[in-house]
Amino acid sequence: MKNPLSSDFIIGFLGAGQLARMSALQAFRYGMQVAVFSDRPEDEPVQFMTPHSYSGSFSDVNSMAEFAKKCDVITLENEFIDSEILSELEEISGTSIYPSPKSFSLIENKLIEKQTFENAGIPVTPYKLIQHHDDLADFGNKHGWPFLLKSSKGGYDGYGNETVKNPDDAAEAFRKLGGDAGHDIIAEAFVEFTHELAVQVARNETGHVVYPCCETVQKNHICVAVKTPAPVSESVQKRAQELALKATEAIDGKGIFAYEFFLTKKGEVLLNESAPRPHNSGHYSIEGCITSQFENHVRAVCGLPLGEPALVKPAAAMINLLGTHKRDAIIENAQKAVADGHLHSYGKLQSKPGRKMAHFTLLGEDLEYTYKRAVEITKSIEI
Amino acid sequence: MKNPLSSDFIIGFLGAGQLARMSALQAFRYGMQVAVFSDRPEDEPVQFMTPHSYSGSFSDVNSMAEFAKKCDVITLENEFIDSEILSELEEISGTSIYPSPKSFSLIENKLIEKQTFENAGIPVTPYKLIQHHDDLADFGNKHGWPFLLKSSKGGYDGYGNETVKNPDDAAEAFRKLGGDAGHDIIAEAFVEFTHELAVQVARNETGHVVYPCCETVQKNHICVAVKTPAPVSESVQKRAQELALKATEAIDGKGIFAYEFFLTKKGEVLLNESAPRPHNSGHYSIEGCITSQFENHVRAVCGLPLGEPALVKPAAAMINLLGTHKRDAIIENAQKAVADGHLHSYGKLQSKPGRKMAHFTLLGEDLEYTYKRAVEITKSIEI
Repeated sequence: MKNPLSSDFIIGFLGAGQLARMSALQAFRYGMQVAVFSDRPEDEPVQFMTPHSYSGSFSDVNSMAEFAKKCDVITLENEFIDSEILSELEEISGTSIYPSPKSFSLIENKLIEKQTFENAGIPVTPYKLIQHHDDLADFGNKHGWPFLLKSSKGGYDGYGNETVKNPDDAAEAFRKLGGDAGHDIIAEAFVEFTHELAVQVARNETGHVVYPCCETVQKNHICVAVKTPAPVSESVQKRAQELALKATEAIDGKGIFAYEFFLTKKGEVLLNESAPRPHNSGHYSIEGCITSQFENHVRAVCGLPLGEPALVKPAAAMINLLGTHKRDAIIENAQKAVADGHLHSYGKLQSKPGRKMAHFTLLGEDLEYTYKRAVEITKSIEI
Repeated sequence: MKNPLSSDFIIGFLGAGQLARMSALQAFRYGMQVAVFSDRPEDEPVQFMTPHSYSGSFSDVNSMAEFAKKCDVITLENEFIDSEILSELEEISGTSIYPSPKSFSLIENKLIEKQTFENAGIPVTPYKLIQHHDDLADFGNKHGWPFLLKSSKGGYDGYGNETVKNPDDAAEAFRKLGGDAGHDIIAEAFVEFTHELAVQVARNETGHVVYPCCETVQKNHICVAVKTPAPVSESVQKRAQELALKATEAIDGKGIFAYEFFLTKKGEVLLNESAPRPHNSGHYSIEGCITSQFENHVRAVCGLPLGEPALVKPAAAMINLLGTHKRDAIIENAQKAVADGHLHSYGKLQSKPGRKMAHFTLLGEDLEYTYKRAVEITKSIEI
């Protein structure tokens, strides 16, 4: 790859949402140019940030290759493109993709992901590939009801997941998720946890950095807030960080990766999900850490040395600002958020209830006080 | 003005260089769209950052008006457009320009600038409008040789300035600067100073914030480094900050402003120059302050509440990285700068010796140690 600190160096993003947008801001900061390929025609967050904008289908390699040939490196902002297609894209275009299609192939499918991490000695939540209808009841009887059914591919933020309470529920959800049509469906036990934790890892040929362990606060399977450092013991934080690094090494990851964990009532740390990209749980790092997840994302995929991920203040609270109305996007009652903390809006033209539109970060000395203040400052915001 | 936190809000920059680029990054962070009008056809730093790119002459109001009509607010990144043209542009397009043409008219001309600030009780360097050739020798005899001759308009980074050592020198420089052709030329005494200081002020209808007082280190009239806080007494720092605020109030400034001062051997703080825009002396604020000059620039012109300008660490050293070769821009030997501090490149396609291409900021506990390390880390960089 050519020196990424050349001003004609182009970093290409597959996907044009807020994760690519916040990464693109860091690419600009290094003087790079940004190109984007979106599966939507226009008006996506990154499409307002570059003259190099392409649209097409994520399953159409030739259309993506035209874009990729203009780029010096390609990176991802989601898990919606098949690793085989990414592999073909890399071959046709001659442009490297990071995280590599090979790394991605080890985690794109929930079944293979679990196996990959289990094989690396990383504890994961109990699961089973459902091969017969009978497996559904067996799993519930063994691991308890309710449990989760998940498509092995494509789920996020609660989509593609169903909670099932009994064998009838399970049979219906299996059908709904496409099990009868041959899609791989896995059952996953509900873990009784005290905290949901997350850790980001950036890694490339120059080394790796591991971010602080944070707690994600979830409502209806959507992350609504993040507290850093997670209000758990230092040994638990360290355990999650060690497992996150181990997981990144297990897939030979180059880029930024996020890992979500359950801290069980028994004190175990179980890997729940992984993502080969910047993650909502790491947004606090923009102001909270010496080097943000987005900056290290860009550095990692471009082969630049990675930056220190340490917190700059003892506590960081991040609040996701979700759409409250179906309307043209406009953030109201945010004066205090702008004045007192760090507001980030993603530039999405349309708001709708529950859509991730913006976030707010507040730094402080004491985590619970900082978190309460952040909630207080943002509670009247409407979008 | 409509709510700037609407995702269809467009902030327009007149000028497409690094100052607009770093401000644009902050506009994106608030979900805004960015438009740019450049007096160069393409490939300027901001032109790679938006699909809304316009080119034309800074003296052609109609061409600029087409651009301005698409924008919700316009701001400046340089002092090259006449305030009368800006005024006309505002009237034709109906789009507000901040800093306002009226504020700008009080500082665009060095003579009026000095008078404005003197009238506000702000000490300035001794000066005189040269109306006859005889004034040249008179000024030298009164204030000492050498002294400076300056065009009242358009100078920057040493351009438009001449140091004159004797009456013959003075006559020639006067001619060269256009004095014989009717341009206003002012003489300015050389001040024996111990430090050159700078302060940024952001101000709008919600209030004002004053940045720390920094020291600018100059070589051949070009700023090569900035040390913050300036290594001078607290009372001197405070004096410069007070004068900077007073100056901003004197022009009823809305936006971000920078003021350069001399600290004389006698301990006086004299205002030297002002700029109605982000300034090289404030680049350290990106990582050095809670809210950077660029973020407060965007907030100020959009009417958003301003952010805290306090330092996040006791010391910040900023090194300007100037072009070292005439070639396609590429930053070499920067691994250590990327790894250990904060490197920013402006995305200019062409480098040439002395051109401002990038900068590097290092934060630390002790100013002199931090500054020395920053110099050490950057000394082998070639661009």
